[in-house]
Amino acid sequence: MSATYELIIIGAGPAGLTAGIYAKRAGLDVLVIEDPSLPSQALSATQIENYPGFPQGISGRELIERFRKQAEGIGVEFKKGKVYNLTLLSSQRWEVESEEGKARGIALIIASGAHPKELGVKGERELKGKGVSYCAICDGNFFREQEIVVVGGGNSALEASLFLSKIVKKIVLVHRRDELRGVKVLQKRVFANRKISVCWNSIVEEILGEDRVEGVRVFNLRSGEKQIIPCAGVFIQVGSVPNTEFVKDVVERDKEGYIITDEKMCASREGIFASGDCRSTALRQVITACGDGALAVVSAQQYIHQQRS
Amino acid sequence: MSATYELIIIGAGPAGLTAGIYAKRAGLDVLVIEDPSLPSQALSATQIENYPGFPQGISGRELIERFRKQAEGIGVEFKKGKVYNLTLLSSQRWEVESEEGKARGIALIIASGAHPKELGVKGERELKGKGVSYCAICDGNFFREQEIVVVGGGNSALEASLFLSKIVKKIVLVHRRDELRGVKVLQKRVFANRKISVCWNSIVEEILGEDRVEGVRVFNLRSGEKQIIPCAGVFIQVGSVPNTEFVKDVVERDKEGYIITDEKMCASREGIFASGDCRSTALRQVITACGDGALAVVSAQQYIHQQRS
Repeated sequence: MSATYELIIIGAGPAGLTAGIYAKRAGLDVLVIEDPSLPSQALSATQIENYPGFPQGISGRELIERFRKQAEGIGVEFKKGKVYNLTLLSSQRWEVESEEGKARGIALIIASGAHPKELGVKGERELKGKGVSYCAICDGNFFREQEIVVVGGGNSALEASLFLSKIVKKIVLVHRRDELRGVKVLQKRVFANRKISVCWNSIVEEILGEDRVEGVRVFNLRSGEKQIIPCAGVFIQVGSVPNTEFVKDVVERDKEGYIITDEKMCASREGIFASGDCRSTALRQVITACGDGALAVVSAQQYIHQQRS
Repeated sequence: MSATYELIIIGAGPAGLTAGIYAKRAGLDVLVIEDPSLPSQALSATQIENYPGFPQGISGRELIERFRKQAEGIGVEFKKGKVYNLTLLSSQRWEVESEEGKARGIALIIASGAHPKELGVKGERELKGKGVSYCAICDGNFFREQEIVVVGGGNSALEASLFLSKIVKKIVLVHRRDELRGVKVLQKRVFANRKISVCWNSIVEEILGEDRVEGVRVFNLRSGEKQIIPCAGVFIQVGSVPNTEFVKDVVERDKEGYIITDEKMCASREGIFASGDCRSTALRQVITACGDGALAVVSAQQYIHQQRS
């Protein structure tokens, strides 16, 4: 017989932890299930400067630790394990199957986040962990005083480049367009940084090397020219993919796999709510994920009360 | 000739300050106008335990100061003054008239918050500041070792009672229903607190006293009985009213005066966005206000780019 909760939250990033805090404070009997193989992307943020409350900025790791401590402090229960199935039982309870066994909940909040997108080029998977990385803060230190390539043009690529510039000797930022996408304040810092040069209008075609990354072959979309950039590491920062495979037959998702909800965080099935990076939304930030998490609890709570009455 | 900005934010609470941080980081030319006569309600929160990132809790004042410091640190421009009119000029710019003069913006984010609701009973206005208060953290200290009444049953009433219990001698919490509305964790603490007793099913009919509060006359909705509770202070915590009078002829508001937006924070007029406590929404918390503020900037930014192109 599986344990029964009022609310099960899947994910322990900003959305899941905020939901946990709000749920516990609301007196709900709540379980948070986290998948250690899919850590919160916030953990890899070297310096978060736009989460309100930390004027000097804070590392993603420290911020998440603070969220966690707050949730644990109020008594939120955590379990580890990959969730692979959700089933609606005839009792109108949702059964969550994970590596750790089964648990039942009246309501579920999916806050499973997203993971880094791969480039999908030759050499990428082969050299993963051998010079190919998706997390500057995790792996930057392996490339001290070496030359590296960062791929992307959004906030995470710019943040990674700026962070790495304090460690490595030289950075080439490879970007497919002729202007960066990241916020202006980060763009300015990148352009002012002598260690960083931008390789515009270019895509990485292949990551080169036998046992270790030795370079990347780059294709210029305008000139049609190819070029090899020698480097010891490649940091890929080209966006993310939602961790929503396990709900693909359960709730509606958009084309990219993000869970579709209304503004109250209700997904397409009764009793299921979604929050944070796994949700189809205009902005994916720590602060918006936290707001989502709080809102999802209010909606889940209303649903739980209806089911009980 | 009035100064022209890309974005003008009206309000400097959690939503307005977060919007300021996001706007400045996005490279927008932004002005924040704050009305000193309508301070953020967060400032009166004695202890905020559900804003993620502060496991030990944080006072509303300190949290707002941190937001402010973060906004100022990145160079957000502030002006003080009550805003009394918004006009769309033929140039498609919005003109904001405040006590301090006029300013023009391509886009506006209304983040003007809300203020405490009055009971609307005899003696309330007459004795305001003479024992009648809407802010426990501001005025609690005036009632050291005295007997007081708190009116309300939601989170703010419970938080105020708990805060005041450390200062005053005795508290009667007067609530119109037979159960409290606040979150369970606060309810438990209130019930466990020996200084606090609850006067159920009752409303305050009149606040008594000549130059100072001397008591309240309470009417029991079930029994029909009246009763005088002697007290030196009355803290009224019965909800809030949005600070949206100045937009009443400009954008659509709901029955209670909250600004109606879509999920991207767009109000009913092009170029106007709304965030935080002044917005019609299911949950009004610091964390949701901050999330709103960030989202409003993304929408405002898209609008500004369209106007420019």
